[in-house]
Amino acid sequence: MGIRKNLTKIKTALISLSDKSNLKIILNTLRKHKVNIISSGGTYKKIKQLGYKCSELSKYTNFDEILDGRVKTLHPKIHAGILNLRGNLKHKQQMKKNGYENIDLVIVNFYPFEKALLGKRNHNEIIENIDIGGPSMVRSAAKNYRDVTVISSLNQYEELNEEINKYKGSTSLKFREKLAEEAFMETAFYETKIFKYFLTRRANFFPKKNVFSGKLLDKFRYGENPHQLGAIYNQNDYKDIIQLGGKKLSYNNYNDLYSALTLTKSFPKNIGVAIIKHANPCGVSINSNNTKSFNEALSCDPVSAYGGILSCNFKMSQNLAKQVNKIFFEVVIANGFDKDSIKILKKRKNLRIIDSSKLDEKFNFNFISKFNNILIQTPDNIKLKKRDFHVVSIKKPDKKTMKKLIFAFNVCRNIKSNAIVITKDFKTVGIGSGQPSRLDSCRIAIGKMKKFQKINSKDQLIAASDAFFPFVDGIETLVQAGVDAVIQPRGSINDKEIIKFANKTKTILIFSKTRHFNH
Amino acid sequence: MGIRKNLTKIKTALISLSDKSNLKIILNTLRKHKVNIISSGGTYKKIKQLGYKCSELSKYTNFDEILDGRVKTLHPKIHAGILNLRGNLKHKQQMKKNGYENIDLVIVNFYPFEKALLGKRNHNEIIENIDIGGPSMVRSAAKNYRDVTVISSLNQYEELNEEINKYKGSTSLKFREKLAEEAFMETAFYETKIFKYFLTRRANFFPKKNVFSGKLLDKFRYGENPHQLGAIYNQNDYKDIIQLGGKKLSYNNYNDLYSALTLTKSFPKNIGVAIIKHANPCGVSINSNNTKSFNEALSCDPVSAYGGILSCNFKMSQNLAKQVNKIFFEVVIANGFDKDSIKILKKRKNLRIIDSSKLDEKFNFNFISKFNNILIQTPDNIKLKKRDFHVVSIKKPDKKTMKKLIFAFNVCRNIKSNAIVITKDFKTVGIGSGQPSRLDSCRIAIGKMKKFQKINSKDQLIAASDAFFPFVDGIETLVQAGVDAVIQPRGSINDKEIIKFANKTKTILIFSKTRHFNH
Repeated sequence: MGIRKNLTKIKTALISLSDKSNLKIILNTLRKHKVNIISSGGTYKKIKQLGYKCSELSKYTNFDEILDGRVKTLHPKIHAGILNLRGNLKHKQQMKKNGYENIDLVIVNFYPFEKALLGKRNHNEIIENIDIGGPSMVRSAAKNYRDVTVISSLNQYEELNEEINKYKGSTSLKFREKLAEEAFMETAFYETKIFKYFLTRRANFFPKKNVFSGKLLDKFRYGENPHQLGAIYNQNDYKDIIQLGGKKLSYNNYNDLYSALTLTKSFPKNIGVAIIKHANPCGVSINSNNTKSFNEALSCDPVSAYGGILSCNFKMSQNLAKQVNKIFFEVVIANGFDKDSIKILKKRKNLRIIDSSKLDEKFNFNFISKFNNILIQTPDNIKLKKRDFHVVSIKKPDKKTMKKLIFAFNVCRNIKSNAIVITKDFKTVGIGSGQPSRLDSCRIAIGKMKKFQKINSKDQLIAASDAFFPFVDGIETLVQAGVDAVIQPRGSINDKEIIKFANKTKTILIFSKTRHFNH
Repeated sequence: MGIRKNLTKIKTALISLSDKSNLKIILNTLRKHKVNIISSGGTYKKIKQLGYKCSELSKYTNFDEILDGRVKTLHPKIHAGILNLRGNLKHKQQMKKNGYENIDLVIVNFYPFEKALLGKRNHNEIIENIDIGGPSMVRSAAKNYRDVTVISSLNQYEELNEEINKYKGSTSLKFREKLAEEAFMETAFYETKIFKYFLTRRANFFPKKNVFSGKLLDKFRYGENPHQLGAIYNQNDYKDIIQLGGKKLSYNNYNDLYSALTLTKSFPKNIGVAIIKHANPCGVSINSNNTKSFNEALSCDPVSAYGGILSCNFKMSQNLAKQVNKIFFEVVIANGFDKDSIKILKKRKNLRIIDSSKLDEKFNFNFISKFNNILIQTPDNIKLKKRDFHVVSIKKPDKKTMKKLIFAFNVCRNIKSNAIVITKDFKTVGIGSGQPSRLDSCRIAIGKMKKFQKINSKDQLIAASDAFFPFVDGIETLVQAGVDAVIQPRGSINDKEIIKFANKTKTILIFSKTRHFNH
């Protein structure tokens, strides 16, 4: 069995830990199997304190730790002890000649660089938390996994115990290779955090080589479809949404959920509702009355809303929860929940209840993989103000109309291109999304409006477009359907014709400086 | 000036290189400024051979390299020389006591791990290419960048020369910090490659911590919109598409281009055309006659095709190029180009000409960032065969009809959900994409068909849906518009009703086992 599983006996272990928790459970096992332990500094003291035998590293290497611990384990006796190929005769002779011995097990965790970052320490303290000796030892051990067992995380203590007990003081090759993979996982992750820290300091956006890292939040039952595998990682060290009830979130739930939050987080503070289906909104409203806001968002397309994601940019109340429960949603998001509202929502067993009040809205990049490539860009998160728009028509909007126009434009930014939105007051009444032709998006938005709204001629209808109209036909179609004011990016060679048409039809026309494609 | 810029004098440099090219340009500068050089092994020999002075590292440390070079620089004298804080009195005393000297400049590049991977070496050789000493030195030097200059790449030689010449043998803090950032860029990138190699060996899909890395292919003038910054990275070491002419590709071009290639690469070998606009197809055909294929794809929606991306899954001919030139496309992709075809296409100065024949179609994951999270999944790349479908209607499709149905379904998979496609033979005649309601996608597809096609009652029309119909109304609307055969995933509670409706209307109905959402 020993040969088949490539068992190697652990005679000597080197332990060097920044986080010394749970050490006892591993020390017991090592003592049971008569493993010699070498250690230094705080780890040495801790081991002695817990009542276990341990040799001091400085005596082992005959070299005193210097530079406040910056140099202690970076010593040939340590690294040769780890790195030598046990089956290599030349290596064996060189080890003997130098008086070096094998180190069979390395247990290391690193200075808490990430914690130093999150703790907002000053730059010098953060730099001091870059571990040099630790990663060197872990990398040596992982490279030589055929002979050496490497523990690079607290989470591995239990399985190490099991393995050593199972094989009476030895470990199997399979286990060692798994640990090597996890060791390089730790070093790779550690390096990305350090690199990103330097990048951010220098505001370097697109370095020659780039790395992205995340911690596993959840594995899904499947990806976008049941024959795909899927998972979600967080780039920081915490969950940014909190699930308070309901079934496990799926890949598609997360995708829709973040589309919803992109939209609702662009609203004024603590008001507004969006309903999302297939990553596109099918109803949006920002009425200061939350219940009204919900009903208005729902009324835009109540058919599509079925089974969708409801996102409330305010704290959920008991009253609204009762209204919400009448409709079938897959997910309900709110910026916090009244206690009683949760009780009510939980009556729908499967309904996923999501608290978004801890959402970290700050992020610097959006990225997406395409075959073996990664497209990366800064997010389209500029807050648009009145000064970012020009009134180009003869007919001018009053203050309130201007606000309505900007609302329509902000909703439109968050719909898949080509996007057209028709709004009345501060609610959507027609949404046209994801079309190759802008004119088609106009027609879809108008069609929705006609299907679900009772519009009378006194209603002020507003239309927004995420990019310029290439021809007059788009705005013409909208105005014919009753639209009174249009907001759109400038930039078409037909801009003049479009302004002319607006003036002819007494339509208010606003040009934005910015375009907002969103694919 | 010296104090303001925090200039530090370089007296001693340590050089340890795997790739020894271009070394001479740096050696000249170091000699000019009387810098002592320490080196070992192949680098030492190379420096001597080039005619420069150099001390041998083993003499410097008084320690002979062992274990076939696995241990040479992992020595306290080296690392203390790099890591000591020059302004720290205690450090100074410890250095003196140990007889250690400062190392002010570290020039290192790593064993070519990536090259070993691409060279398909065996596992032992790949493992031997994991550099231990190199990254340790680079990390030490980068950590101590306030005192030490670190060169971790061949590309930095020129700027090092400039800096040293400018400051007469010194470097500025600003420069050293930039180099530290780039050093951690190199180590982070190196570690991700090693980690991913281990992951792949063990087929571990979703490790607890994950990393993604890429090399910068291009910075764009802007991202999806002009107020956003954007760039593209490649996860491998090569460009997978080749641009043969035209304007620089934009962020949106790349986004559309890879949507096009996802679709065309799902076609049978060397036939088929797709036209893409806003990441969605607006026309698809797989006629074995390439010119016919082009014309058919174009005729599906010639209005939307304007300014789109043309993707040909075959080698572009002179004849077809003449046809293509009559239409305004932003990008033309082909699986290779006849020489004469390029000449013709280049007549349109701005037209981006893309050769996709070197596209690396193999990739294991799709990932996308959402706020501070990353959603990751295996791609939806299963090849569907006849056995993956069930005929559930009384009316059965013949062999050719079955092929047409599968074609329609494969196109539908690559359209943004909810997606409905109507096809005639092996071309699309109506595409409905990106709607929150499936019924709306049906109507959009039908609307397109009615607008651009002359359909007569003898034509066999086929419809495909990327997910099941929740109600009968979707299929009903399609059949009323003349559709004779429908292919769709099973799974609705109304499946039985839908089969009943198909039989009542003598419609062929096929169920797939797989669903194909694509958001």
